[in-house]
Amino acid sequence: MSVTALPHLPWEERPAGSSDVVWRYSRNPIIPRDLIPSSNSIFNSAVVPFQGRFAGVFRCDNKKREMNLHRGFSENGINWQLDDQPILWQYDDPELSLFEHRYDPRLVWLEDRYYVTWCNGYHGPTIAIGYTFDFEQFTFLENALLPFNRNGVLFPRRVNDRYLMLSRPSDNGHTPFGDIFLSQSPDLLHWGQHRFVMGVKGGWQSTKVGAGPIPIETPEGWLLFYHGVLTSCNGFVYSFGAALLDLDQPWKVRYRGGPYLLSPQTYYECVGDVPNVAFPCAALYDPSTGRLAIYYGGADTVTALAFARLPEVLDFVKTTSEL
Amino acid sequence: MSVTALPHLPWEERPAGSSDVVWRYSRNPIIPRDLIPSSNSIFNSAVVPFQGRFAGVFRCDNKKREMNLHRGFSENGINWQLDDQPILWQYDDPELSLFEHRYDPRLVWLEDRYYVTWCNGYHGPTIAIGYTFDFEQFTFLENALLPFNRNGVLFPRRVNDRYLMLSRPSDNGHTPFGDIFLSQSPDLLHWGQHRFVMGVKGGWQSTKVGAGPIPIETPEGWLLFYHGVLTSCNGFVYSFGAALLDLDQPWKVRYRGGPYLLSPQTYYECVGDVPNVAFPCAALYDPSTGRLAIYYGGADTVTALAFARLPEVLDFVKTTSEL
Amino acid sequence: MSVTALPHLPWEERPAGSSDVVWRYSRNPIIPRDLIPSSNSIFNSAVVPFQGRFAGVFRCDNKKREMNLHRGFSENGINWQLDDQPILWQYDDPELSLFEHRYDPRLVWLEDRYYVTWCNGYHGPTIAIGYTFDFEQFTFLENALLPFNRNGVLFPRRVNDRYLMLSRPSDNGHTPFGDIFLSQSPDLLHWGQHRFVMGVKGGWQSTKVGAGPIPIETPEGWLLFYHGVLTSCNGFVYSFGAALLDLDQPWKVRYRGGPYLLSPQTYYECVGDVPNVAFPCAALYDPSTGRLAIYYGGADTVTALAFARLPEVLDFVKTTSEL
Amino acid sequence: MSVTALPHLPWEERPAGSSDVVWRYSRNPIIPRDLIPSSNSIFNSAVVPFQGRFAGVFRCDNKKREMNLHRGFSENGINWQLDDQPILWQYDDPELSLFEHRYDPRLVWLEDRYYVTWCNGYHGPTIAIGYTFDFEQFTFLENALLPFNRNGVLFPRRVNDRYLMLSRPSDNGHTPFGDIFLSQSPDLLHWGQHRFVMGVKGGWQSTKVGAGPIPIETPEGWLLFYHGVLTSCNGFVYSFGAALLDLDQPWKVRYRGGPYLLSPQTYYECVGDVPNVAFPCAALYDPSTGRLAIYYGGADTVTALAFARLPEVLDFVKTTSEL
Amino acid sequence: MSVTALPHLPWEERPAGSSDVVWRYSRNPIIPRDLIPSSNSIFNSAVVPFQGRFAGVFRCDNKKREMNLHRGFSENGINWQLDDQPILWQYDDPELSLFEHRYDPRLVWLEDRYYVTWCNGYHGPTIAIGYTFDFEQFTFLENALLPFNRNGVLFPRRVNDRYLMLSRPSDNGHTPFGDIFLSQSPDLLHWGQHRFVMGVKGGWQSTKVGAGPIPIETPEGWLLFYHGVLTSCNGFVYSFGAALLDLDQPWKVRYRGGPYLLSPQTYYECVGDVPNVAFPCAALYDPSTGRLAIYYGGADTVTALAFARLPEVLDFVKTTSEL
Amino acid sequence: MSVTALPHLPWEERPAGSSDVVWRYSRNPIIPRDLIPSSNSIFNSAVVPFQGRFAGVFRCDNKKREMNLHRGFSENGINWQLDDQPILWQYDDPELSLFEHRYDPRLVWLEDRYYVTWCNGYHGPTIAIGYTFDFEQFTFLENALLPFNRNGVLFPRRVNDRYLMLSRPSDNGHTPFGDIFLSQSPDLLHWGQHRFVMGVKGGWQSTKVGAGPIPIETPEGWLLFYHGVLTSCNGFVYSFGAALLDLDQPWKVRYRGGPYLLSPQTYYECVGDVPNVAFPCAALYDPSTGRLAIYYGGADTVTALAFARLPEVLDFVKTTSEL
Repeated sequence: MSVTALPHLPWEERPAGSSDVVWRYSRNPIIPRDLIPSSNSIFNSAVVPFQGRFAGVFRCDNKKREMNLHRGFSENGINWQLDDQPILWQYDDPELSLFEHRYDPRLVWLEDRYYVTWCNGYHGPTIAIGYTFDFEQFTFLENALLPFNRNGVLFPRRVNDRYLMLSRPSDNGHTPFGDIFLSQSPDLLHWGQHRFVMGVKGGWQSTKVGAGPIPIETPEGWLLFYHGVLTSCNGFVYSFGAALLDLDQPWKVRYRGGPYLLSPQTYYECVGDVPNVAFPCAALYDPSTGRLAIYYGGADTVTALAFARLPEVLDFVKTTSEL
Repeated sequence: MSVTALPHLPWEERPAGSSDVVWRYSRNPIIPRDLIPSSNSIFNSAVVPFQGRFAGVFRCDNKKREMNLHRGFSENGINWQLDDQPILWQYDDPELSLFEHRYDPRLVWLEDRYYVTWCNGYHGPTIAIGYTFDFEQFTFLENALLPFNRNGVLFPRRVNDRYLMLSRPSDNGHTPFGDIFLSQSPDLLHWGQHRFVMGVKGGWQSTKVGAGPIPIETPEGWLLFYHGVLTSCNGFVYSFGAALLDLDQPWKVRYRGGPYLLSPQTYYECVGDVPNVAFPCAALYDPSTGRLAIYYGGADTVTALAFARLPEVLDFVKTTSEL
Repeated sequence: MSVTALPHLPWEERPAGSSDVVWRYSRNPIIPRDLIPSSNSIFNSAVVPFQGRFAGVFRCDNKKREMNLHRGFSENGINWQLDDQPILWQYDDPELSLFEHRYDPRLVWLEDRYYVTWCNGYHGPTIAIGYTFDFEQFTFLENALLPFNRNGVLFPRRVNDRYLMLSRPSDNGHTPFGDIFLSQSPDLLHWGQHRFVMGVKGGWQSTKVGAGPIPIETPEGWLLFYHGVLTSCNGFVYSFGAALLDLDQPWKVRYRGGPYLLSPQTYYECVGDVPNVAFPCAALYDPSTGRLAIYYGGADTVTALAFARLPEVLDFVKTTSEL
Repeated sequence: MSVTALPHLPWEERPAGSSDVVWRYSRNPIIPRDLIPSSNSIFNSAVVPFQGRFAGVFRCDNKKREMNLHRGFSENGINWQLDDQPILWQYDDPELSLFEHRYDPRLVWLEDRYYVTWCNGYHGPTIAIGYTFDFEQFTFLENALLPFNRNGVLFPRRVNDRYLMLSRPSDNGHTPFGDIFLSQSPDLLHWGQHRFVMGVKGGWQSTKVGAGPIPIETPEGWLLFYHGVLTSCNGFVYSFGAALLDLDQPWKVRYRGGPYLLSPQTYYECVGDVPNVAFPCAALYDPSTGRLAIYYGGADTVTALAFARLPEVLDFVKTTSEL
Repeated sequence: MSVTALPHLPWEERPAGSSDVVWRYSRNPIIPRDLIPSSNSIFNSAVVPFQGRFAGVFRCDNKKREMNLHRGFSENGINWQLDDQPILWQYDDPELSLFEHRYDPRLVWLEDRYYVTWCNGYHGPTIAIGYTFDFEQFTFLENALLPFNRNGVLFPRRVNDRYLMLSRPSDNGHTPFGDIFLSQSPDLLHWGQHRFVMGVKGGWQSTKVGAGPIPIETPEGWLLFYHGVLTSCNGFVYSFGAALLDLDQPWKVRYRGGPYLLSPQTYYECVGDVPNVAFPCAALYDPSTGRLAIYYGGADTVTALAFARLPEVLDFVKTTSEL
Repeated sequence: MSVTALPHLPWEERPAGSSDVVWRYSRNPIIPRDLIPSSNSIFNSAVVPFQGRFAGVFRCDNKKREMNLHRGFSENGINWQLDDQPILWQYDDPELSLFEHRYDPRLVWLEDRYYVTWCNGYHGPTIAIGYTFDFEQFTFLENALLPFNRNGVLFPRRVNDRYLMLSRPSDNGHTPFGDIFLSQSPDLLHWGQHRFVMGVKGGWQSTKVGAGPIPIETPEGWLLFYHGVLTSCNGFVYSFGAALLDLDQPWKVRYRGGPYLLSPQTYYECVGDVPNVAFPCAALYDPSTGRLAIYYGGADTVTALAFARLPEVLDFVKTTSEL
């Protein structure tokens, strides 16, 4: 295991009187919809520690409501500076130049660089992989999977000498179904040996589930935060919970927490471009303190922050587990 | 007629300047979504006077978003203590142990005990009947009807020597239709002689209608508060209005008020797990003063209270009646 | 057990070379769509032995495509004379006079008379019960169940002193779901203690299932022929198979044959007002020979006949059973 | 060109720090949902200068949720007095008396009188034309088009000797498509030579588009504010933008601004009877100052006001144009 | 009245034993799907007497399944020669050159020439009008109505000095609704004073109705053959019936026959590109004998012929009338 | 190029008088639905030359309507013997044992063995790859792609040192969309560098398109027969046509024939379990004569045969090409 200490991650203690395993930052949202001039909304975004501060790839929908990815930096993980222009991807094959949309990025340090995965419009949404060494130059590797897919999430290291990616096969619209699968690759270009990981259950996760932040390696397994969707008579409700995947065969779910950890209940989660959405895409973890800072989108409009302690999350997942 | 005086029911006068027939309690919601540790939301619930105070059966969805029924007590009908654990039903036939969900209870004193009806998941939603003498032991009698049904509401006495129940036959999803029917029974176990009572009309009640609180006997007929649903391009809107049913042949509608009495307009009715819902399940009535206290769910998230005076409601129903 | 010998039931031997458990009559359809002047189609109909010959209640859709029930007689069960006018039902309560449609009748000798159940339009389809002593006068008893329901089928005797009826709760359209339930009654008027009997499985019965002819009592259980529906990209396909229900607790399925017994494959089953329908509503059985004659509708247009031997059917159900 | 000076139109300067081309009035909404006793909501309404003050035709949905048109007057264009009773239309042919609903009016001075167009329920929604000389008597001319249509908007003068009307053909429900067409007429009664003007594009205008206020004549073309709809997983989102139509062949789009000018972001746009709606129906323009005051409905519940300067809008449309 | 004698129209007597008011030609279909090399199917087509023989405009779908109109001639109205190439329309405004599809033509002699109306794809289906004097040159006048519309049918003379057209407003797909409206015009270019004529009823005409052949003037009113659609669980079924419209106010229905006159029952009506379609677009009438020859499409694949006698049809419509 | 001579492939000359590029075998269907005792239907199947005769993998749906693959042999390619039991696949990873369904196989000689691809149910339909050397032992390699996918078709040789597979990403139901993509692999296990090949066009191929038989190498490119689907109001219609793909970059379409080559027009294509389906899965080609024998499923019920000459097909594709 090689998770690095990160003592300066954003943090706020649990509010007095609360027994929630995950709690919200009191000054949410941390990124308003109009942080940059061109943006309609900024949400479902990913961050990593970078050179003593923090860097991120952010989903910014502009005022045409086009979805794209923007770079950002922060000293404290809370206050962010974002480029007003989208990331310019470099690529060899002009076929990759097709731009329908780019959204919901994830970001991971893997071996020697930062990899970005995102939902890329190539004749329908699919999972693209790119990388950067320095957050200055960004290279578009390839579309890893065929359409239609969303929520592609890489593991932070190879397992059994294979790169691993979670994803949620979908259709070409507001998909009313969705399970999490794992795919394996020798080279990040070609993927196979696909395995079913987990599907829907009742209640808050009865319509679809999808991987959230990069899985966090723990002695008890890979900790996966994931979103779940319930369909009410007035649409989708996105909450999130957590599960523990087997360390060596991560398509095997060891524990799966029954209740959600956070559901849309505040104004900035319930009111916005898409009401009732709490959608996590990144988590920072400091193994020295067990602290977790979870970044999630609110109402598909703003970016918010929540906190937890890893041991408590593991305990929650195990004690409430329903497989 | 045997409606008992209830001078201590919750009450607040109509706000100055308002001419509304039904008005909201100024400190709504009276029950927040997180009143008990396990709850995601508490709404669409039923109360009765009980031993000088108030008792109730409450719909509490837990943090898995499972729907269940919880017991509660209150001194004043406004501040409630609820059990964190759901009601444990006792029954003879193990077939009744099947639990898919329980929700939207109604509660009525009928002859010698308190009967509870609720929407019970038995291979689809249907209407179950149970009872309690003391709010300590609860017995599950039977599923009164076949799936798919919702909003089963008993009358507070036999009519023509038959027990009567209103219900709203539905489908197995977010039913986009729904009329109110009346069923008759010699024994509360077997039901027949089903009669159509009322269907949809235009506007606020154009998608479906369903009985709300236990009908209130008045010299002019059974006063029925009922919800109506309008389908906008962004989903269902639940409001409520009232009608007067014939005393002896309650499947005959004598008057039906044209406008709604209350529609979702406040934050707690418009924002929550299901936006734009005001859904009444219980009403307390004091014949000595004519006061009515109506309990209704807000946004499928919290419980709220509204007030009215019976003579004004009757007048409203009759003067705006459209059959 | 009281099944009467019926040696003169229609019969034709299994074709040479066939090993089918159920085989078609070689002169199908036995009733063409235009047997009577007013009819557009005649199908999904029920017959019984009656005074040494056969009587029946037939679904005839007229040339407005209104669905109604007509009386018919036959000497041999194959050649039928039908009234051009629908059956005139007698009833006390004028509420029963409402006519939306009547279709898919079943017919059973029960205690002292012939009972008819059918799908009756009363603010939506539900199950009505009527009776006749002599096929001259027909009395409409009541709507047994609330809408929305179809395929109500009575048992030929009381079980545990209760009348029993199978039905398939539905919605108000071309229902894309449907399970079989059993309801119980002390008086044929009021029904309760509803029990789930069986739901959909894969393949030919993956969309919905519904009871067909009156269950046939055998020492091994109640033999139930039932239809199953598969949804192809071009619509529903109705086939039929069989199951054995427990003699004393008929909501318990003892065996359920895996494959269908007959699926739409001939011109008169595949081409007509509704392509690809084979829908059984009645079966004649001669215990002295084990012969079965099954009446079924073809393509919602004509009436056809198929044959089988009861011991072979029981053997089929048991050896291919999948619960 | 004959646009009259209107120096007293409502006005408020752009907020400090903002660079928005269109900005909201700081005291929005200007008309609350309950301004008149009978109203559930007041929105999607039209105003004109009239005798030194302002007159308008307002969509008021009453508490049955019936949609109708009411007259109103204002001294300053911000504070309005509305009649509690709907406008009484006079007409010769009793066929025009049919009332299903009337909504979303537009109002224009054309030659010698004020014309009103609205969505009129005549066996489905279509576009009706009426007129008034004095805002005292209102005459219903005719239904100009066949159902199903919405958002009929007249030009303020004849072009090529033809009256012109924009409209958005639709279906009979919550239409998930919609393009803008132009129709021509010699007499305002008969319409033909229909021409396609513009259809959907990506993002905020990907589901449907429809004309908003009366087009404003400028040397560079007819300035058309129009609404666009995006379909999220939780329903429609109505924003608005602008385009410039050819002066002489107004079915030809010269420029079309890429981003929206205003999308639902405030509480009164995001929360209400239909969440996430900003829907413009009228604009006042003062050529002497270039000031524009745009009236728009918020959340299908209230009426709001926004401001802009015409030269800036023209510049925006041209510099961001995507055809 | 000016209906010309047409003694040489195609004719075959009613089959012995039949009492049908409309009966099929024994050698149907008269035009097979592959009559011309380019055609996939030929159906829903219109014919008129022309210079002692017969001329027609035919819907031919080619092997790309593009829908277009072809010219044809026949000596006897039964055996037809069709051009392999579509009609080339001449027009002034290049906007009319847009070709999405052309289908379901009607053809009428009106004043001084033959007018063709058809369903024309102009940003969606609408009704176009063209004409020919000689079946050599064809001129495209204009799109008479806005999309979305189908089944535009002209009257054969002006009424009250107005040209009249029936049509069926629709949506942009396989419209699940549809009523018949009448529009009026001074010049065939501009249309207004739209009036509702008739809508759906139960049974065979419960989904939508649309005008068929050109209305035939009789002393008792305009005889209108029209199609009606029923939706089964396996799709639409197109039958046809008849109504009598008021001579002077043809939007008033005087009589409307209850049953269908012909429903899809033969192989060529039930099996083909769209199963279960009988769709009439033209009728020839000989007032000297009362004979009617009705051309209709079978299964959207071939063209068939049926016969009737006008007095019998009028009698049928009146005696079975249900308004 | 290495296509082997195959002079004994099934063959029948074009019927006299026909100019069709593809024509049907006069004794179709060659495989009836009940060729083996267990089968409900046999269709959408693949064949190859094998040891001087022919071998094949056949889709047989059994009488439960389970879909599976069966082996078959034939001396002449027309008369087939099929195993009554499905193929038993061997595999190492027990995860591959999951059986939901197997259908629509393709079969290709590739390097050293016969590879089978089929639609495999693994938490939804996806593309599996297996192989056999001898048609005695069959090995299941892996699921090549994530769900949801159908119509996976391998190329008969590596191109640019990569194995190539066409597929049609879909959803989990009766997918109303579908384009053809190409994926590349170094090892047949891992796939990437996915490229869009071709999507829907109008008419017969307006709903979805999917690859049919193994592409045939010609000097002018890879000849691809593919199916196209049109959605009528009564469901899908499956026809097939052809295109030519670039030899070295096969994701580039060089020519695409406009009309279909064969559409469902015969009884065995129009009537059956799914009406109106002609679905090709295999083609035999003899380069010495240019003869082609195309195997296709009829009405998802039987297997049929059609013939063509390669030079004529190439000519057809090029002269009618529309890109």
